[in-house]
Formats: sequence, structure tokens, C-alpha cells
Amino acid sequence: MTAPESPSFPHRHLLGIEGLSRPDIEALLARADAAVDISRQVEKKRTTLRGRTQINLFFEPSTRTQSSFELAGKRLGADVMNMSVASSSVKKGETLIDTAATLNAMRPDIIVVRHHAAGAVHLLARKVDCALVNAGDGAHEHPTQALLDALTIRRNKGRIEGLQVAICGDVLHSRVARSNIILLQALGARVRVIGPSTLLPTGIERFGVEVFTDMRAGLAGCDIVMMLRLQRERMNGSFVPSVKEYFRYFGLDRDKLALARPDALVMHPGPMNRGVEIASDIADGTQSLIREQVEMGVAVRMAVLEALATHLPNA
Amino acid sequence: MTAPESPSFPHRHLLGIEGLSRPDIEALLARADAAVDISRQVEKKRTTLRGRTQINLFFEPSTRTQSSFELAGKRLGADVMNMSVASSSVKKGETLIDTAATLNAMRPDIIVVRHHAAGAVHLLARKVDCALVNAGDGAHEHPTQALLDALTIRRNKGRIEGLQVAICGDVLHSRVARSNIILLQALGARVRVIGPSTLLPTGIERFGVEVFTDMRAGLAGCDIVMMLRLQRERMNGSFVPSVKEYFRYFGLDRDKLALARPDALVMHPGPMNRGVEIASDIADGTQSLIREQVEMGVAVRMAVLEALATHLPNA
Amino acid sequence: MTAPESPSFPHRHLLGIEGLSRPDIEALLARADAAVDISRQVEKKRTTLRGRTQINLFFEPSTRTQSSFELAGKRLGADVMNMSVASSSVKKGETLIDTAATLNAMRPDIIVVRHHAAGAVHLLARKVDCALVNAGDGAHEHPTQALLDALTIRRNKGRIEGLQVAICGDVLHSRVARSNIILLQALGARVRVIGPSTLLPTGIERFGVEVFTDMRAGLAGCDIVMMLRLQRERMNGSFVPSVKEYFRYFGLDRDKLALARPDALVMHPGPMNRGVEIASDIADGTQSLIREQVEMGVAVRMAVLEALATHLPNA
Repeated sequence: MTAPESPSFPHRHLLGIEGLSRPDIEALLARADAAVDISRQVEKKRTTLRGRTQINLFFEPSTRTQSSFELAGKRLGADVMNMSVASSSVKKGETLIDTAATLNAMRPDIIVVRHHAAGAVHLLARKVDCALVNAGDGAHEHPTQALLDALTIRRNKGRIEGLQVAICGDVLHSRVARSNIILLQALGARVRVIGPSTLLPTGIERFGVEVFTDMRAGLAGCDIVMMLRLQRERMNGSFVPSVKEYFRYFGLDRDKLALARPDALVMHPGPMNRGVEIASDIADGTQSLIREQVEMGVAVRMAVLEALATHLPNA
Repeated sequence: MTAPESPSFPHRHLLGIEGLSRPDIEALLARADAAVDISRQVEKKRTTLRGRTQINLFFEPSTRTQSSFELAGKRLGADVMNMSVASSSVKKGETLIDTAATLNAMRPDIIVVRHHAAGAVHLLARKVDCALVNAGDGAHEHPTQALLDALTIRRNKGRIEGLQVAICGDVLHSRVARSNIILLQALGARVRVIGPSTLLPTGIERFGVEVFTDMRAGLAGCDIVMMLRLQRERMNGSFVPSVKEYFRYFGLDRDKLALARPDALVMHPGPMNRGVEIASDIADGTQSLIREQVEMGVAVRMAVLEALATHLPNA
Repeated sequence: MTAPESPSFPHRHLLGIEGLSRPDIEALLARADAAVDISRQVEKKRTTLRGRTQINLFFEPSTRTQSSFELAGKRLGADVMNMSVASSSVKKGETLIDTAATLNAMRPDIIVVRHHAAGAVHLLARKVDCALVNAGDGAHEHPTQALLDALTIRRNKGRIEGLQVAICGDVLHSRVARSNIILLQALGARVRVIGPSTLLPTGIERFGVEVFTDMRAGLAGCDIVMMLRLQRERMNGSFVPSVKEYFRYFGLDRDKLALARPDALVMHPGPMNRGVEIASDIADGTQSLIREQVEMGVAVRMAVLEALATHLPNA
């Protein structure tokens, strides 16, 4: 995995896709391609991060992302410590920065952070000596999700350059959408966003995407159909669509998928609301890459941890 | 521990005691006997599962069972990841199967599952590539508990064949009772169930057990008195006995225990309701095997993990 | 770290500072000094506790203490298992002693316990075969906090003998204060307690400390100003001070700190209530040792775990 020819990664943290160059992204994807095989072996264990401390600091619960980082770290030999902060010091009135500074004083090598506020991870990056990985900050960025999506696409389509990708649904609340738009365009894909106007951020066009509020029109000619989770838990007070109406107009079913290219592939970052943004037969169908995305998630996180480890203060 | 003469275990999963042959059970008990010594050593660590990933997926909280599986896995060298799902993706509306499929995509070798619904683990077994261990599914089965009970009995009585075992109390809600009835009979014990008629499953006789609603009559001549926890938290809306009355008629105290054989031994799967189903002096007395059951629990789980590891896809 | 000249530690458990001799304390501090370097290395991993099982049994949540013990154990090579008991067996009515006896039967080498009741850890010590470490029991003791405070002071001042230390604030609810008073005096420091009379324990003078209810008077001439967290969550029904008034009279700000010696150093066990017991600029200022205390915490816990390991039953 640590092939000598691996291009070095010139960043101390992974805070977002924004700020990464195309070679940065391609270096991470190359490392991730190699990491896929580690998890497929009997002994899925390396010593790359032996004696290193990784802390997963989650201010929001997440089954899949935290697990994925935990397994990635353990398979590279790190000591991994999980901190779910909802039930802990925050109760006692400790601030985000104090929590991070406290952990930093314990001399971890890497802190993986998820936080409900956009920008929280950038704030922390100025306060710690170790490497930080953004595992999702509010509606801002979720860079490892975008990297795993790109890895999944590239392994199935052989390329990303020139593909037509549609990102569909609740774009407004989606850090996944934002990171993907930046990354996919950096690698040469053309990106469309599709959704009800109430769930599209104002001014989304400035990211260079095509915007559709009619899903049928938007899907025409797409190579990749990337569905987003309808995040009703974030819609406090604002417009909350009826599930039935939402599925009718923006749920991916057999009829709508038929409008994309015949070899179109379907993705979803999970967890899925079956029957809301995606029909079950599509989620489990032959065009779905959804399970493979999860597997690629572990590989991408191994790649990121490994790349950042080469920049750690003591190394 | 991996003695070359260990009979191989011909099952990919451990879903229940039902379906295991007597040689299957005896092979697991033989492995477990060897595993007891590992935890008694200074360095209680093997490399049998080095580089293997074990996920403990608990949809119900459990101090002792989850801990026991965690220590068993770690002592065999596995990377162990705990997932308590009450507070996680289930909140976001993800189904049981999606959760399991997601974890499966991360390429674990073994998933240990506890779920509140009978049959949930069998359902999952059809969806995953790795080995599954049932750590309790509703009122259905809890196979490692039955194995550890059998191991404890055999080490103290020298045999199981021909013993008279009484399983007493809240049989209706007990997966422990069900697994034990099948296992103990498979090894040649005679089994009685004792409890108030409201806490005995209809048709329990078809399992070949003798049924008693009078505890004093039922205990006569017994070698093993296995008490069950009164699971009042599962009695929603139905008959909930008064604790005082319950203890009077079905609580194991010195007087009632005197009706069993003089060398009778007392067991309880824990956690105990002292003064409800068992008197404290009996729980802590010389005839009690309750602490030893916990120690045997770790050994049995090591044996099961090791046996299943010989069947893993990649091995 | 395991230098042959390390004086051996003659106790099976670490239940409190009370009962430790000055040589006992100095032996632990010497080990801790050596342990500091381990966490500053690239590979912060030893094999001292390889194959040993450490259980962190927390009946109260705690970000920093549990994390610190977890990292300490992992960096020494132990298998570490966390048990947060609020959400587990206690719900099913299991007693403290049954929980501990159950864990003890799983043959751990060390159990680290935090409990809301003073004396709970002493009670458990009589029930288990393994080593116990008190990680805080009610308002009684928190010995590793006092050790890390002493280590921090000694590394910054070169000595403890003869220093004037002020412990300020909510002494009534503070196990930290109690352990520190005993330890610092055992090493030859002079200790003052400062706080409103309602937050000072009756008869605190019998510990040989000077008592001040005027913070300005109390700070005069101090080398070390140790602030305590205002534990309003423990003030059920009794006197709860207004935050604004409290800060005015007992919060450490630039004006009050100026009354201590010019080279006085400021400490806080965390988590801090900024603007309640301490001003933010003091907490983050050049006289603050607060972050260093956290780092020393990991080192002290490594030292304690290592010292106790030399006394484990099987070793």
C-alpha cells in the first residue's frame, strides 16, 4: 500500500475537497485502490499506524461513518478511541474548543471529527497539533464521502472525466452534494443537480452545475444517478415535503431511471429512506453501487489516514 | 487451543442450538475447555483471529453478553468493533437489513448480533457473507448461554448425561430456557420446567420436558437448579406478578433448595433480581455456580469464534 | 519505563491518596515522568500490559478521565474495554456488587472505576481479585487527578516541598480537592482552601489547611492557584450561587491573580466553566498549566497501571 511511488499528499489536514488539487485527489484515489485489497484478505491488518492514536470525535451519531473510520484505523494498526460527545463533557458546559484542546493534549496523531455546525472542523484545525479529518460538518463538506463516491465510479466506469452525473434530492441540507460537486468537476465530470426548488440552495449555479427541478428532464443522458437522503430531521420549521408526494416527483424508481443512459449506475450515501427518495427494487437492483460504496468507504479512509500520517509532527 | 485433533465445526453460523448435532456441541465444549486456561494466564492473548474483524451489533443493551464477546474476540487477537444501534442509524429510519448489509460491506469476518425480535438473526444470516453468532434474539434462542451453562455443569458434575435439571421461573420470556432445553436434552440430561402457568409457554411439553407449576414438587431429586430472571420489562400489558408473591412461590431460597439433591448446584444466567427469583444467600452460597458461569461465558465465546473462523470465506 | 531501579509499589489497588506513603507517591511520579516521553514519540506503544485486560467501569460519564485511562492502557499494550453502566445492567436492577463480580469473573487484570457514591470503590475492592483504580468516587477521592497535578507542578516548579498552594472554589463537592490536599501536604507543600463558606466542608481545618473565605486574602503569596469546577449539577436543593456573583467574588481573573506571586501558575482539573470560576484569558494565558495537566494525566495513568501490574495475581 505504501508504494514508494505514492505521490506525497501536501496537506496536514483533510478539511474538505475545496482546496485539493486534481493531483491531490488522484493520489488519494490511487492509495485507496490499493487499500481495497487489504480488507479483502484473511489478515486485514497492516502496521502503518502502529503506535499511532486516532480519536473519532463525533458530535453527531453516525453508524456508518464512525464504523468505517474505526475499521480503517484498526486495520492500519492504530489505537482507535471513539468519543461520542452528546452524552459527555458538553453536558458539563465545556466548549467545542476546550474538548478538542483537551484531546489534543493527550497527543493523538489524528482526530476524525463530525460536527453539526458548518465550519466547526476548520475552527478546530487552528487549535490542534495533530492531523484532522472532516467526517462531516453541518451542510458544508464531507470529503471522504466524495472520495469514496469517486473511487466507486472510477472502478465501475473506468474513468470520471467526461461522465454526466446527476445529484438528486435534498441538495439544500447535503454536505455530500457539496463535496461531490467540487470533486467530480475537478476530475472532469459534468454535474447536474436535481430537486424541488425548496431543497436547492440559492445560487447553486455558481458552482458550475446545471440545475433541474424536473427530475425526468434532469436524468436524461446521465451516466451516474446519485440520490441523496431526504433529511427531514434538519427541516425544523421550514418546508417539509409529504413523503408520498416527494417520492412521486423525486423518488428514483424504474420509470425515472429508464430516462438515464441504459448503463447508468445508481448511488446513495446512506442511510436510505426506502420508498422516499429511492424505490427498494432500484436500491437492491443490478444498476446499484450502494453496497460497493460502503466497501470503498473503508478503503478511502485507510488511504486518507495513511496519507496524513506521512505529515504528522513526529514522523 | 487449536489442537489438530479438534473436530471441525460444520456450520458457517451459530444461529441456535437447534440444528446442532451432539458431536457439534461436544466439539465446541472441548474447545471451550481449552479456552478457559487462556483467560487464567498472565498474557491472555492469542493470535488466532489476528487481522480478523468482529462486529458486536447489539440492538438491545447487555452488559455481560457484549462484554463477554468483546473480551473473547480481543483475547483471540481480533479487531473488535461495538455497535449499539438504539442511538444510531435506526433513528434515521434505516432498516435492520440495511444496517447489516452496510456492516457486511465493510468486510467483517464475524458479526455477533443481539436483537429484540425472534428470528432476526436467521433473517440476517441470508444477507451477509461473514459468520453470524446469535447473541440472543427475542424469546427464541441464546445459544452461547446454553453452551456456557453446559460447560459449567460438565466441569462441576463431570458429565451431563443422566442429570436431572430444573429450569425455573419466567420460561415464557426466556431464550435461555429454550436453548438450554434443546442442548441439555441433546447431551442426555432430563429437563423439567417449573413456573407459574402464566409464565410457561403453551405447548412447552412438546419439547420433551416435564412441567411443574409447584416448585417444591419440581425440585425433588434435581441435580441442577437453573433459575431464570423474571423479565418484568417484557410483560407489557400482560400479567405482571407481585414480587413478594413471586418470591414466596417461585423464588429459590434455602427451604426450597433443600428439596433438591443434597449435592444440587444452582445456576442463573444473570443479571439477577435478588429477592425476586433467588435469595441472596443462595446466589452467593456454596452451591452456587453463578460466578463460574460468567467465566465460562468468555471461554465458550472464544471457542465459538475460533470454530467459526475455520469456515470464513477467505480462510 | 520499567527501569530496574523503579521502587516497587506496595499496594494492590489505588483507592485513594490516603494510605499512600511519601515514597509510594514519589515512586509513581518517577514512573510518570518516564511515561511522558512515550506519548511524545511517533510509536507511542509499549508491550508492558500486552495480553492484560483493563476494564473502564464508569457509572458517571467523563470525557477526559475515561479517555485518559483508555489511551494509557492502550499505549501500554493492554486490551481495554469500556463499560458505561448508566444504560446497561443497572436498568435491569443489578447491583453495583453484582456488576463488579460479573466483570471480575471475566478475569480482567485491572478495573478502573468511577462511581457517584463516596466509598463505592473501597466496597468493590473487597469483592474482586484484580487491581482496582479509583477514577473518582463521589466527593471522596480522585487519586490520579492529584498525582497528575503534583507531576505538573513538580515539572514546572522543580519541587513541591515548601510551595504555597491555594485550592479555590467549590471545595465542598470536590474529590479533586480532597485528594490534592492529602497529596500535596504529604510532599511538603502548604495548602490553603479558598471559597464561600457554603462551599467549604465543615471541619476542613482538620486536614491541616488554612481556610479563606476572601479570595483576595487567600491568594496572597501563592505559588500555585488551583481552581475547581463549580459543580452546580450536584447542588440539588441546596444553595446554588448566581454565576455572575460567583465570578465576581471567586472567579480567577487578572486582578485577583495579580495578588498571587508573580510566577504563580494556574491549574484547573477541567472541564472548565469559563466565565464562572475562571476568566478565559487566564485559562489560556501564559501562567496556565491547564493543557499540560491533561497531558500529564495520560502519563500518570500509565504509571499507575504499570505499577499495579507488578502486583497482579498471576504475574
